[in-house]
Amino acid sequence: MHSSPYESLLGRVKEASIVGSIGSTLHWDQETGMPAAGTGWRADQLAWVSSRAHAIISDAETGRLLEAAEGLAPAADSDQAVNLRWLRRDYERATRLPPKFVEECAHTEAMAQEAWREARAQSDFPKFAPFLEKLVNQARRRAAYLGNGGKAYDALLDLYEPGATSESVGLLFDSLAPRLQTLVAAAGDPSIPAPAPLPNGPYPAAAQERFNQKIAAAVGFDFASGRIDTSTHPFCTTLGPLDHRLTTRYDETDFTSSLYGVLHEAGHGMYEQGLDPHAYGLPCGSAISLGVHESQSRLWENHVGRKQAFWNHWYPWAVECFPQLAAVTPHALWRHANRVRRSFIRVEADEVTYDLHIILRFRLECALIGGELEARDIPSAWNTMFSELLGLEVRKDAEGCLQDVHWSGGGFGYFATYTLGNINAAHLMSAAGKNEPELGKALEAGNYAPLLNWLRTRVHQSGMRKLPAALIAAASGSPVTADAHLAHLEEKVSAYCAG
Amino acid sequence: MHSSPYESLLGRVKEASIVGSIGSTLHWDQETGMPAAGTGWRADQLAWVSSRAHAIISDAETGRLLEAAEGLAPAADSDQAVNLRWLRRDYERATRLPPKFVEECAHTEAMAQEAWREARAQSDFPKFAPFLEKLVNQARRRAAYLGNGGKAYDALLDLYEPGATSESVGLLFDSLAPRLQTLVAAAGDPSIPAPAPLPNGPYPAAAQERFNQKIAAAVGFDFASGRIDTSTHPFCTTLGPLDHRLTTRYDETDFTSSLYGVLHEAGHGMYEQGLDPHAYGLPCGSAISLGVHESQSRLWENHVGRKQAFWNHWYPWAVECFPQLAAVTPHALWRHANRVRRSFIRVEADEVTYDLHIILRFRLECALIGGELEARDIPSAWNTMFSELLGLEVRKDAEGCLQDVHWSGGGFGYFATYTLGNINAAHLMSAAGKNEPELGKALEAGNYAPLLNWLRTRVHQSGMRKLPAALIAAASGSPVTADAHLAHLEEKVSAYCAG
Repeated sequence: MHSSPYESLLGRVKEASIVGSIGSTLHWDQETGMPAAGTGWRADQLAWVSSRAHAIISDAETGRLLEAAEGLAPAADSDQAVNLRWLRRDYERATRLPPKFVEECAHTEAMAQEAWREARAQSDFPKFAPFLEKLVNQARRRAAYLGNGGKAYDALLDLYEPGATSESVGLLFDSLAPRLQTLVAAAGDPSIPAPAPLPNGPYPAAAQERFNQKIAAAVGFDFASGRIDTSTHPFCTTLGPLDHRLTTRYDETDFTSSLYGVLHEAGHGMYEQGLDPHAYGLPCGSAISLGVHESQSRLWENHVGRKQAFWNHWYPWAVECFPQLAAVTPHALWRHANRVRRSFIRVEADEVTYDLHIILRFRLECALIGGELEARDIPSAWNTMFSELLGLEVRKDAEGCLQDVHWSGGGFGYFATYTLGNINAAHLMSAAGKNEPELGKALEAGNYAPLLNWLRTRVHQSGMRKLPAALIAAASGSPVTADAHLAHLEEKVSAYCAG
Repeated sequence: MHSSPYESLLGRVKEASIVGSIGSTLHWDQETGMPAAGTGWRADQLAWVSSRAHAIISDAETGRLLEAAEGLAPAADSDQAVNLRWLRRDYERATRLPPKFVEECAHTEAMAQEAWREARAQSDFPKFAPFLEKLVNQARRRAAYLGNGGKAYDALLDLYEPGATSESVGLLFDSLAPRLQTLVAAAGDPSIPAPAPLPNGPYPAAAQERFNQKIAAAVGFDFASGRIDTSTHPFCTTLGPLDHRLTTRYDETDFTSSLYGVLHEAGHGMYEQGLDPHAYGLPCGSAISLGVHESQSRLWENHVGRKQAFWNHWYPWAVECFPQLAAVTPHALWRHANRVRRSFIRVEADEVTYDLHIILRFRLECALIGGELEARDIPSAWNTMFSELLGLEVRKDAEGCLQDVHWSGGGFGYFATYTLGNINAAHLMSAAGKNEPELGKALEAGNYAPLLNWLRTRVHQSGMRKLPAALIAAASGSPVTADAHLAHLEEKVSAYCAG
């Protein structure tokens, strides 16, 4: 039997997907349950997997097959053409990164993650500093290998958000920051009543699991091909076409922390579950960007989960899981979930302050990769900028520059996509409401299928066929701007200030 | 830098260990938490891993390095000579198995495990039959590829128990069976009082976890490099030199079921934790056989955990975890844990009937692999033999031939090692008691370190330096026989019959 170059290429892509998904499984286990002493060997395993994946993609035979398949000139809008275009990009990227370098990065990252975990627990930046220095140097080298003559940082940003540049994102963020600071100031007016405190805990982790599980299933996360576990830093990962894992963490004094973690990660998981499983690992069956991914998580977390309608609907279930909640109203839960206050930890930040946390990280990363800032100076740069943007003095690095897992995994260029996601989410939600006049009523009734179906058809099923900006514009019917996001926040702050 | 052939060979062995341990991680996840829909892709992952591992070991370069290293003739008793001897055996085995065949087996096994799980849940043998037929055919083909002219089954037995033959094991089992049946009959005398029933449950799974965790740590299982999870069929697996995973399952009406599962698997885990982590993946740092492995699990489960001294010591902790136990005495718990009664499920069988379950499986496997029995006839053959050996009529295949995971994973030749383990355990324990006169007092005081240290030095640290029979003889000071095992069971039955 003779295979076409394209079919042979798909065979290699499948092997690379197998290897990649094995790496994801090893990562998932490292984050959710691996005994601490397992770190060294896990690093060896991940380095091996990473080098195998790189070898398959960058192999000369892959290049030959690509060229042969491209030579047969498939129709420009066919799936085959889409797949070839992105596979060509992957191949170019992979062949620019020397295998030794890829392996070295994977090893550093595995060791750095464990060091970060300890450093954060002890709020001991110097313990993490030598790892961060290595990671930054590797990121600079990666940018140099990948770069196309633009700014070094753009090469990293493009890994997560194809088409975005530090200039375009920087301008957008510069225009956002002051309007957000104004909103934060309005909500922080001392005359605004603070939300009533939640009734005293404990809110047992087991009851939270039960509470979250039912809600995740109701919004549409499919547990036949998914599960929820516990990790220090919540995440969502895909281990195969029908295997999607979410994680969250439990605060027994406040059940809403794990709930919003789950809604957020379930949004990611539902995007993955909405991709074509038969095209798993291929561009047509893959998510287009992190900024689009984050639009899905933010949409379910904030535009569904933080609405009054959500709390009206789920109030009886909340009281069943946590009987002490009978003492408060659904409105009190809504207000608790929407409190605006400056705080230190990004993943616990409210919607209004959140983007300021991102803008800080984006600016620091631009400076780090651009060579204007060194790893050792991160704590003071972080703290100064934090004070300027959020008006708070960071007292310890565990609540400052040590709080996030991303850098320890080499993920420079990633943070900006969170705020791009917020902007996309609001833009999509606003369009969905106009397209589907009954949507509001369905959400009030706890019927999430119309919204999920709208997203499935217009966003998820597109895979990588359109670039992020084109995808959001086509889905919503208009080019993306930050207007819907700011309007959403302004409306919320106004309702919040009314008490 | 120039490496010796032996050093280069070690590099390849390390790569094979990485790949093998990745396979173990994927298996562990499949058994403990993978969503059901993930099965197909997991099978693809496992097939790929298995074919990679096979490729590394069977590669011509491995053969060349082996030959070159052997040519340098290391001292016969050196670790290098030990490693080369076993690596040669692995290489010979691997090169006799065609890569396509290895991949096909891994794929069948992954699919068969899921089919078995469903078939067992529904007690539906025909659902599993086509998979079992494939598995048996693959096992016969494997035996033919590996065989050295002896009986086909011996080639499979030798995979798990080097040096054992179906003839020697068959004779041993034929002599054991009637003496065990006599003991079972004695304990089943209607005049013997049944153990008092445990106080009513529930014994919540979370309380059982807590109870077991403390005991596993006390006997010496190291949680810095290990953990306990839940699976349908309890097992122990090693995912790296310092990463050991146990599993158990919870019956909320009887907390002793998960306890003995944990003690058993912790025995396996402590053997693995006692091997040299610097020789991980090398013969000098590997367990010698399953019969020796099982001696460690059985020793902790039965010769420690099922003694009156164990219950005297742990009674207060049991009452703390399960307050209803205050209504019974430590002696009642001992008697509950040592009840003798014919039953259907091997993993829940008591010590006295257990070996009869194994003898049945061993005889069926000999007939299956020898071609005297076919997969489709397993239910009737099982039920007939069960009635002869244990005097009970099997009413459904879920409590008969569908109960074990082993065949669904292709593990023919494995079962006999359970009874070899029982025999080894009793022989070692008897020797340890004679060597260390204070051992009994230490165990009464809940001090397990002297026993663990004795096993570490005499058994664990040997790796694969001695064959099983030689290892047990050297550790105990005398060649292994079944005498200690039968004496142990006779003493127990006599105490049990006294009420």
